[in-house]
Amino acid sequence: MSGDRGIFIVLEGIEGSGKTTQAALLGEWLEQLGVPYRLTREPGGTELGEAVRQLLLHGGSMPGVTELLLMLAARSALLAEVVRPALAAGEVVVADRYSLSTLAYQGYGRELDLAQVRRAIARATGGLTPDLTLVLEIPRPGGEARRVAGRRGEDRIERAGGAFHERVVEAYHLLADTEPQTVRLDGCGEPASVQARIRAALSRHFPETFTGKAG
Amino acid sequence: MSGDRGIFIVLEGIEGSGKTTQAALLGEWLEQLGVPYRLTREPGGTELGEAVRQLLLHGGSMPGVTELLLMLAARSALLAEVVRPALAAGEVVVADRYSLSTLAYQGYGRELDLAQVRRAIARATGGLTPDLTLVLEIPRPGGEARRVAGRRGEDRIERAGGAFHERVVEAYHLLADTEPQTVRLDGCGEPASVQARIRAALSRHFPETFTGKAG
Repeated sequence: MSGDRGIFIVLEGIEGSGKTTQAALLGEWLEQLGVPYRLTREPGGTELGEAVRQLLLHGGSMPGVTELLLMLAARSALLAEVVRPALAAGEVVVADRYSLSTLAYQGYGRELDLAQVRRAIARATGGLTPDLTLVLEIPRPGGEARRVAGRRGEDRIERAGGAFHERVVEAYHLLADTEPQTVRLDGCGEPASVQARIRAALSRHFPETFTGKAG
Repeated sequence: MSGDRGIFIVLEGIEGSGKTTQAALLGEWLEQLGVPYRLTREPGGTELGEAVRQLLLHGGSMPGVTELLLMLAARSALLAEVVRPALAAGEVVVADRYSLSTLAYQGYGRELDLAQVRRAIARATGGLTPDLTLVLEIPRPGGEARRVAGRRGEDRIERAGGAFHERVVEAYHLLADTEPQTVRLDGCGEPASVQARIRAALSRHFPETFTGKAG
């Protein structure tokens, strides 16, 4: 991050880790602080992105590489239309998923070549990386919980099967330790408790923007 | 091409060069010859591809890289669902546009980095290249014809403006000479005359399948 631009924060984690709730609570805080901000979600966040979201989550089966290319197409539109203009205007951008999701779901989950996935991400994003990625960690769902979730079957990716989701869970554990500018946070407990941890982390990493304002 | 698989033929050219008409006439010939075949078009050709086609041709503005990624997403689905199975079954696949279009429209037209576009194409297609690409050449549209076409404004890419289309036309001239397994054909005259040239070219390039059957 540089002084003349905003802060790009990403919330990550597996399904059910509370990203969407926490992004909304973070928005409330930024509102209270009077910090201009934008919330985005992936896939989606633009007209094109929401159309792609429908294809990805509710379309038929498709090869892993097709899924990757659609995700990156939606992301490139989101960056051009929303994220880059907001950062250029000095705003805080809070994104619900970004490149860590692509590595976890398409790279590890769909078992695509990781080096190629990384290069494809770099090209699609023009190399824009978050200032901070917060990975919300929850205990991995047990077999029974996964089977129940599987029966509910909300979308194509949630229905992708146990082995796929095992690989995604493992990938999040690995990537949270190895990706730059990435920290793990305990995602368990009341939403307000998790939010307090997020605010503390932000105050620690971006003292100029947040110090003394947390809690 | 190898003896145990089909033949992958691509028809290329700028808008109005007659690709779609010629693909249909080629299909009639293959029908008469009793050669199993599939016609495809891009973007499109699958449920996902047709949805992407709507976004590409009738959606709002988008960055060049987004357009590229959507094109390649649709192509990767088309290859998996239609083209590879047909080739594996020994059929002739006749595609209305393929990678030459991507180089011409997204590479040259949108002025993306050509080396990156080539790498992205190679990854999205798994390196599958046509056995023969036929470029239908017509006189380049004059300024007045382009302005009329611009007013008709059928789709987003056709409306992209004169400089864009100049670059695409130049690209087709260049690529027809430099891409491997690619030949120029005169696209002027009656559809039946153009079709005769196409059939002669196929008989010349694939004598085992077509020799003595043309005309």
